[in-house]
Amino acid sequence: MLEVIAFDADDTLWHNETLYTMTQDRFKQLLSDYQSPEWIEERLYKTEMRNLTTYGYGIKGFTLSMIETAIELTEGRINGRQIQAIIDFAKEMLQAPVRLLDNVQPVLARLGKERHLMLITKGDLFDQESKIARSGLADYFTTVEIVSEKSEKVYRTLLSNHGIDPKQFLMVGNSLRSDILPVLALGGMAVHIPYHVTWAHEKITGQKEIQTGYFALEDIGQLPALVEEIDGSST
Amino acid sequence: MLEVIAFDADDTLWHNETLYTMTQDRFKQLLSDYQSPEWIEERLYKTEMRNLTTYGYGIKGFTLSMIETAIELTEGRINGRQIQAIIDFAKEMLQAPVRLLDNVQPVLARLGKERHLMLITKGDLFDQESKIARSGLADYFTTVEIVSEKSEKVYRTLLSNHGIDPKQFLMVGNSLRSDILPVLALGGMAVHIPYHVTWAHEKITGQKEIQTGYFALEDIGQLPALVEEIDGSST
Repeated sequence: MLEVIAFDADDTLWHNETLYTMTQDRFKQLLSDYQSPEWIEERLYKTEMRNLTTYGYGIKGFTLSMIETAIELTEGRINGRQIQAIIDFAKEMLQAPVRLLDNVQPVLARLGKERHLMLITKGDLFDQESKIARSGLADYFTTVEIVSEKSEKVYRTLLSNHGIDPKQFLMVGNSLRSDILPVLALGGMAVHIPYHVTWAHEKITGQKEIQTGYFALEDIGQLPALVEEIDGSST
Repeated sequence: MLEVIAFDADDTLWHNETLYTMTQDRFKQLLSDYQSPEWIEERLYKTEMRNLTTYGYGIKGFTLSMIETAIELTEGRINGRQIQAIIDFAKEMLQAPVRLLDNVQPVLARLGKERHLMLITKGDLFDQESKIARSGLADYFTTVEIVSEKSEKVYRTLLSNHGIDPKQFLMVGNSLRSDILPVLALGGMAVHIPYHVTWAHEKITGQKEIQTGYFALEDIGQLPALVEEIDGSST
C-alpha cells in the first residue's frame, strides 16, 4: 500500500491563481490611461521573471514587481495614491479567505485515515503558513513542508529527510513543472490535476513523453479510486 | 556532553541589522525635504508594526512598509523615481554580500567536529536560504530550520520533530525575545551574545530575572570555552 501521499497546495487544494488574475485585472485597469492591457500584462510578466532570482515566489515580490512595472510604464508619472492602491491589492490578497476546491476536504479525510498525508508547497513562508492555518486543513497532514523551489533536488532531500522510498511516494498537484516532472524524474509517482488557470511561468512547452508513474485526473474527487488502483496493481 | 548546539543567523553569525540601519538612513535622506529624520523613523516603525501580521518578517515586507510610509509622509506627492529608489534599496539589501561576524567560522568548525550544529533562523524563506548559501557556512550545519516566528511553541515543535531533549539543547543568539527567553521557558539553555545594534521590535523591557540555563557572552569566540564548562558541570 502507498504509505505517503503528498499534495501541492495552491490551485490543488485551494484557489490561488484566480487571486493573481483578479489583481492583474485591477492593475491593468489602474494603468488603463497609460497603456493597453496586453502590453501591461507582458511588461509585468517580464519584470516578474527578471526579479524572480531576487525576490523568489509570493505576493510580496509580485507586488514590488507591479509597482516597478507601473513606474516604468508611466515613465515615473504614477502618483502616490495609485501606488498605495497597488499596496492595498497586496494586502487584500494576503488576507483573502482561503477558498477550497470542490471535494478536497472529504478526499483528505478519507485518504488520511490509513496513510500519511504530506503538504509540499512553494512560496512565501509566512503567507503559506497563514493560508494553511486559514484553510482548516492543517490537521489532515502529518508533515507540512514549505520550500522556496520545487526541483528534483529539493524533493530528493525531502524524501531522504523523512525516510520515504520514492517508489512508495505519490505527489498530487496542478503544475507539471513543480509537482509532476521532478517527482517522476526521481522515480516517484505523480498525479496531475490541472487547474483551470495556469500561470505562464508554470506552463511547460515541449514536455517529455508521458512516463511510467504519471497519472492525470480532472478532479481531486477521483483520487481515492486511483489510489486504490495503484495499491491493487502493486500487490 | 551537549549534543546539539543551535545558532541564530542574522546578527549572530553575520551582520544584518546594520543593513537595515543603512537603508533607513538612505530612506530618511530621500524624504528629507518633507519631514525630520526622527519623525520618518517613528512613522516607519509604526507602519512596520501595523503590517507585521500581514507581511511577516523580511526585506520585502520592510520595503512595502517604506513605500507606504513615504506615500503617507509626503501626502502622496512622492514621485515614481523616488519610489523606484526605495525598490532599488531593497534589491541591494537582498543581494548584499553576507559579512560574517568575527570568529564565527573557526568557532563553528571547532564545535561542529563533535556535535550536531543547527541553524534556526526567522524571516523570509527565500532570502534566508540565499544568505545561508552565500555565507559559505551551510556545511557546518546538520539541520537548517527557517521559521516565520521564534516562539516557545515553535521551538517545542522543532525539538520534538528532531527528537532533541530540551535539557541537552543550547541555543546561541543575539535576541532575548527570539533566541533566549522562549528556549529558557521550555527548559533549554541559551547563550545571549548581543549585537551592537538591536531592532526596536526585538528589544525587551521589563525582562524576567536571569534564569537557570542563561549565559551571556560578549563575543562568539568565547563560546567553545563555555560549552566545555557546561559539559564539565553536567558530568
